Amino acid sequence: KLSSQNVVQTQDHVQLLETNLDDITGEQLGDAISAVIELGAKDAWSEPIMMKKGRPAYKLCVLLASQQKEQVLEYLFSQTPAIGVRYQLIQREIMQRQIKTVATSFGKVQLKQLSYKGITKVSLEHDELLRLAAHWQRPVSKIEKKILAELQGKVN
Amino acid sequence: KLSSQNVVQTQDHVQLLETNLDDITGEQLGDAISAVIELGAKDAWSEPIMMKKGRPAYKLCVLLASQQKEQVLEYLFSQTPAIGVRYQLIQREIMQRQIKTVATSFGKVQLKQLSYKGITKVSLEHDELLRLAAHWQRPVSKIEKKILAELQGKVN
Amino acid sequence: KLSSQNVVQTQDHVQLLETNLDDITGEQLGDAISAVIELGAKDAWSEPIMMKKGRPAYKLCVLLASQQKEQVLEYLFSQTPAIGVRYQLIQREIMQRQIKTVATSFGKVQLKQLSYKGITKVSLEHDELLRLAAHWQRPVSKIEKKILAELQGKVN
Amino acid sequence: KLSSQNVVQTQDHVQLLETNLDDITGEQLGDAISAVIELGAKDAWSEPIMMKKGRPAYKLCVLLASQQKEQVLEYLFSQTPAIGVRYQLIQREIMQRQIKTVATSFGKVQLKQLSYKGITKVSLEHDELLRLAAHWQRPVSKIEKKILAELQGKVN
Amino acid sequence: KLSSQNVVQTQDHVQLLETNLDDITGEQLGDAISAVIELGAKDAWSEPIMMKKGRPAYKLCVLLASQQKEQVLEYLFSQTPAIGVRYQLIQREIMQRQIKTVATSFGKVQLKQLSYKGITKVSLEHDELLRLAAHWQRPVSKIEKKILAELQGKVN
Amino acid sequence: KLSSQNVVQTQDHVQLLETNLDDITGEQLGDAISAVIELGAKDAWSEPIMMKKGRPAYKLCVLLASQQKEQVLEYLFSQTPAIGVRYQLIQREIMQRQIKTVATSFGKVQLKQLSYKGITKVSLEHDELLRLAAHWQRPVSKIEKKILAELQGKVN
Ligand code: NI
Ligand code: NI
Ligand code: NI
Ligand code: NI
Ligand code: NI
Ligand code: NI
Ligand code: NI
Ligand code: NI
Ligand code: NI
Ligand code: NI
Ligand code: NI
Ligand code: NI
Repeated sequence: KLSSQNVVQTQDHVQLLETNLDDITGEQLGDAISAVIELGAKDAWSEPIMMKKGRPAYKLCVLLASQQKEQVLEYLFSQTPAIGVRYQLIQREIMQRQIKTVATSFGKVQLKQLSYKGITKVSLEHDELLRLAAHWQRPVSKIEKKILAELQGKVN
Repeated sequence: KLSSQNVVQTQDHVQLLETNLDDITGEQLGDAISAVIELGAKDAWSEPIMMKKGRPAYKLCVLLASQQKEQVLEYLFSQTPAIGVRYQLIQREIMQRQIKTVATSFGKVQLKQLSYKGITKVSLEHDELLRLAAHWQRPVSKIEKKILAELQGKVN
Repeated sequence: KLSSQNVVQTQDHVQLLETNLDDITGEQLGDAISAVIELGAKDAWSEPIMMKKGRPAYKLCVLLASQQKEQVLEYLFSQTPAIGVRYQLIQREIMQRQIKTVATSFGKVQLKQLSYKGITKVSLEHDELLRLAAHWQRPVSKIEKKILAELQGKVN
Repeated sequence: KLSSQNVVQTQDHVQLLETNLDDITGEQLGDAISAVIELGAKDAWSEPIMMKKGRPAYKLCVLLASQQKEQVLEYLFSQTPAIGVRYQLIQREIMQRQIKTVATSFGKVQLKQLSYKGITKVSLEHDELLRLAAHWQRPVSKIEKKILAELQGKVN
Repeated sequence: KLSSQNVVQTQDHVQLLETNLDDITGEQLGDAISAVIELGAKDAWSEPIMMKKGRPAYKLCVLLASQQKEQVLEYLFSQTPAIGVRYQLIQREIMQRQIKTVATSFGKVQLKQLSYKGITKVSLEHDELLRLAAHWQRPVSKIEKKILAELQGKVN
Repeated sequence: KLSSQNVVQTQDHVQLLETNLDDITGEQLGDAISAVIELGAKDAWSEPIMMKKGRPAYKLCVLLASQQKEQVLEYLFSQTPAIGVRYQLIQREIMQRQIKTVATSFGKVQLKQLSYKGITKVSLEHDELLRLAAHWQRPVSKIEKKILAELQGKVN
């Protein structure tokens, strides 16, 4: 998975696709978000909007690399009610990312060490915390606090 | 129309109906809100919500008098995907309402004079302003400001 | 799973739990919604709200039978930042529900036949459609249209 | 109306105008969306946002052809509280659109036949369904299902 | 301030006031939320809703003790466009709360120690963290992590 | 403060920064919006969105001059969970703005006189109204109406 890979550049650019949908159900929209992520989109989300004629609706947004655009458009046109999709090339400033495995009292945990022009921070992948919480039968929040305490001084 | 009638009591109670819909489109939801208002509901609106399995959805809310409940439930069950509708009896504190027609430089305008335990205020019906704006080909906001200026001292 | 069982009554009552959270992340809120559903809640959702001091926040809502309340409260207090939870007993009007399996050209499909005082309708479970779409490698929307066409006259 | 015309290209570009409004009422915003559509905008919608100083607000968005920009800006500056409007030129990928009239058991119905690189689909205009539902006194959802069943094999 | 007082019961009841406003601006709504909090309300928030006639709007919600209801109603009727306010008595399950001052490497910090039927947790007041962050010129998130690390084993 | 300065051009361009955050709390997001405004951003707001894996989230948006971008990025990367920030250069059409002080029966009030290609309007700064309301112990809405009445014919 892309998000578990190291990233060394601090700038890139992505395509942002958007389409307004007043004729999709929430169930179908949930499917669409999962599907475009599986097709390789970097991110996908929906926003509640209010369209003309008193119609509540959703704006579906997809962030992707240019080479994924054709496949995602084919999905949107064939599997959702979309009949038009807006797109723009957008620049991004991103933190450099290094995936690390560190030892904690709950076992080994994967985390991201992030840096940008001298700024550093650490991000525990939420799914890693869920895995530990299920294994140790402890609340995620308590495990997170303890790991952050243990990591003080070690990373970041 | 109920909202253009005088109201003398300062308390009443209403039924609040609610149903969560992840399988309705915005077009259908717009229809439903118009339809229950036409059936006599006092108010109807939708709220964007986020349901389980990553599904964006809408909560449809209807405010009505108890005697309208049966007809609105029949509408919701027969014409929308709703399969269950929650309801509660809710108390309301309301301002006394007197419909008045006043003369302005734009012609006669209907307004609501409102009062509650010594508090008074005036509410220009938005549809009245739209009517005047269309007639005089002037922005609604400018007409509203001028009427409010003229009404200073006359009402409220 | 409860939602795949027959339901014969047309009225019941449920507890509605609500708590406002300005100190939870979206990741944690997604966890909470899944978790209370797994604990047996009938439904759970979040609503975007805007609290005091300019803080965007979420209202977490849970619908459950009274006997599940204690366990869900324990979850909310131990695993989320909630420090107070509001609750009310709410009445519901519900359609009678009969789970049926019908033959279609895509194979057997489970659906809900719903009825309420002479009103009848059919609801295809969205997960059933997803299963067929994956099996036949066809868009969900096209499978749904074809099944609805085949069901004309058979059910409902 | 533009939306009932055939469209043969699969790409175009549009202007996206946006303005944040913390000093407009919902009534005025509803007016503004109707008004810019009547001025010829391709689409218009609002999004709930949360601004500084704890102020809930709306983002008003308008999609239009470049030649409509001047007139819509004049509307926004003269008739709403907007004092600044952002705009961008945005590319769109769109399905080719052919308006067709087909015979159904409810009478003739206008629909859009859509295509994009070999993908085809059919879109029943929601207003057409409303018209039939009013005429036949039947729920929109049931009319839609029956028409979709009849259209199987005929179009798309 | 109430929120910095100890609370020993685990149940109480509150009034929930609600009013739908399509004729208030975001600026005015922000004022209203601050004002009712200052009048002693326990909480106040707004929710984006979509009303009839294509009008985006806000639902204003206020949680208060019964003895504050009259004063808040007077505020709402005299200072906002509200002409009717719904209200309900709602039960609450709440964690027992003990305000504690603990020593940390950043100085003394006030926190809430919370308990409910054997469940315990600690809540750092966000405003306390802001105060420390301003004093030490350090990011809130880093101060929070360090304090949580230091508190491991001491409280909770 | 920039917003109390005169503006003579009718076009400019700004940077729009956006980042999606599913791991920030509402409290932290409120801080971030205040902080970037203090760093000199022209505007900042959040939008409720729904991300993948059933996670409600926020999109944080910041509008700023290009020379402020570096400082705001440093804030976002060091003090919020953001690990990537999208940005675009956006054009704006803006009304010319002249700050005026006018005499009213409540004392001197600062307002903005706005103009754009022959369109003129007046905007009372909301904070000015709050100041007068506090001083005169009168509802903001009543003060606003009276001032607007007095200003008829004087400005705009
Ligand atoms: Ni590239
Ligand atoms: Ni449509
Ligand atoms: Ni009654
Ligand atoms: Ni469903
Ligand atoms: Ni019971
Ligand atoms: Ni808090
Ligand atoms: Ni303003
Ligand atoms: Ni948005
Ligand atoms: Ni009491
Ligand atoms: Ni109104
Ligand atoms: Ni709500
Ligand atoms: Ni994450």
